[in-house]
Amino acid sequence: MIRFVHPYIEADTALKDIGKKLLAGDKRALARAITVVEAGGPEGTALVKELFHHAGHSHLIGVTGSPGVGKSTLVDALVTEIRKEGKKVAVLAVDPSSPFTGGAILGDRIRMQDHTLDKDVYIRSMANRGHTGGVSLATYDAIRMLEAFGFDVIIIETVGVGQSELAIAQTADTTILVLMPGSGDDIQAIKSGIMEIGDIFVVNKGDLPGANKSATEIIASLELAHHHTNWAPPVLVAISESGEGVDKIWESAKKHHEFLIETDQLNERRRGKVKTELSEMIAGIARTNLEESIDKSSEISDALSSVVARKLDPHTAAAAIIRKLFGSSPSDNGLERTQTESLK
Amino acid sequence: MIRFVHPYIEADTALKDIGKKLLAGDKRALARAITVVEAGGPEGTALVKELFHHAGHSHLIGVTGSPGVGKSTLVDALVTEIRKEGKKVAVLAVDPSSPFTGGAILGDRIRMQDHTLDKDVYIRSMANRGHTGGVSLATYDAIRMLEAFGFDVIIIETVGVGQSELAIAQTADTTILVLMPGSGDDIQAIKSGIMEIGDIFVVNKGDLPGANKSATEIIASLELAHHHTNWAPPVLVAISESGEGVDKIWESAKKHHEFLIETDQLNERRRGKVKTELSEMIAGIARTNLEESIDKSSEISDALSSVVARKLDPHTAAAAIIRKLFGSSPSDNGLERTQTESLK
Repeated sequence: MIRFVHPYIEADTALKDIGKKLLAGDKRALARAITVVEAGGPEGTALVKELFHHAGHSHLIGVTGSPGVGKSTLVDALVTEIRKEGKKVAVLAVDPSSPFTGGAILGDRIRMQDHTLDKDVYIRSMANRGHTGGVSLATYDAIRMLEAFGFDVIIIETVGVGQSELAIAQTADTTILVLMPGSGDDIQAIKSGIMEIGDIFVVNKGDLPGANKSATEIIASLELAHHHTNWAPPVLVAISESGEGVDKIWESAKKHHEFLIETDQLNERRRGKVKTELSEMIAGIARTNLEESIDKSSEISDALSSVVARKLDPHTAAAAIIRKLFGSSPSDNGLERTQTESLK
Repeated sequence: MIRFVHPYIEADTALKDIGKKLLAGDKRALARAITVVEAGGPEGTALVKELFHHAGHSHLIGVTGSPGVGKSTLVDALVTEIRKEGKKVAVLAVDPSSPFTGGAILGDRIRMQDHTLDKDVYIRSMANRGHTGGVSLATYDAIRMLEAFGFDVIIIETVGVGQSELAIAQTADTTILVLMPGSGDDIQAIKSGIMEIGDIFVVNKGDLPGANKSATEIIASLELAHHHTNWAPPVLVAISESGEGVDKIWESAKKHHEFLIETDQLNERRRGKVKTELSEMIAGIARTNLEESIDKSSEISDALSSVVARKLDPHTAAAAIIRKLFGSSPSDNGLERTQTESLK
């Protein structure tokens, strides 16, 4: 018999308290909540269900760029800038955890110790151990926990600029792409079409030679690029170490947020994000169902053996297994039948 | 109405010819076939169905390690070594295509020009543009094309050692982990538990200081590690530039292959690989179905809007959508009903 895995199990009382405590401003409860959603499972799902409608009111800022361009220092300076306005700010540093770079982000975090005594700043590193090259579901849920806690601004920082990192950066409302002079990253970014994901461009380490040249090149390439919106991405030169130019980055981020709200693009972006998340979630349910069924269903196990023995091709096997996992072959009739019982 | 996407469409006549030509030893047809499966879609699926039962007879060798350790040079020398025995060999260089490292692999390939005049050597680079952090389905299918062509050995080389690369390396029968002295990679590899994926360890650039020290450290850590099999991974020092020690790598690879066959672990490994592939395929079908249904089904579109408006949590929405996409909620009854129509 095949067990259908869905996460409907109620949380226990202790975990329900965590949700309440988190909403009441308890930072330990927040830390625990993120750990719970990071681990996944029914407890995490229950927490998300409880706190979900408290989320959605924060300005999410993604910060991405190659290793070494000074993202952490920039984020540090940005936090200082945001705090001047008295806004509560959280930093979620997401590491897609290549086995050879693990730990890098935690080292960087030591530099943010200035803020650790500030009760309105919260800093958290997490691995992005998704099954997918995109954003792990835990990352979305961790952001929800931070939103429910009531941070005005949540900065999502990534380690590098791989596929996963770009996907993570795009979960934000405003994406800041950080480059540095002379790294060649600017040219590569222009070539690879990565420019499209940036709402704000920062040439960091602006005291290095070539900073203005880099900025000019980026501006020129942006003029050539076709933009879907009528937001013209600003290109800013900054020196994060000294904080020079960081005020302008924060100003631009706020302007971009206002622009998104005024043009109703904030909702549109968030819709796209939810679509991606649901898509991964559904793929994940399918994957989990298979994993859990393989040892329990002799049909599925036999299909696997047939593919190994080259008697059955994998595409045919996958189609047959998906029918088996979800109980019926998709048909108009089936769709009609379920319309009444679902999506309420 | 929701369209169910499955890849049952028959190939056109021209593409059927490609399969026949490939089996007849036509390298152009092979190149075309890989391009077709790389693009995905019904043509690729049809080719896989046609050639699938011709695959499975090659020795798949994965070569992985950090950028700069000399993987390409090692692969080059390994090809020379394998050719001495008259065996046909293919190299598939897989790039998980971070936007900032694109092109690196192609440059390396220029060094392999020695082999381009050899008709029994085939070299191909491909991007691994999977939706997943693992192996794109196209990679599995490209390997199948090479197997059907009749290569005795297929070397699968990856650019780095990220999650994707490790997953790619593990699609091989024999995985070679390449390290170099003084890079600190050896220590990191030991710490991160990456050692478990290596069937053979190579300390490359063996003329650099510290090579023997690195090898000794790896051997010590392997002795501590718990192995599931009774294969003791050899740790070899090599200088790929001059070819020194490469004969021993090839000897070890052959020994490992024999070991897998004798202990029936080859089939076990391949079963695990098929399981992973089917899992990704099924997740992909679920994902594609959602993508294609969102604009066509008002229920699904409404569910999406409800999540954006924070009226519905994403976990509940995903469960409802999966019922809708696949026609019914899973039940024993449904399973019974489909047993007769599937997995034949």
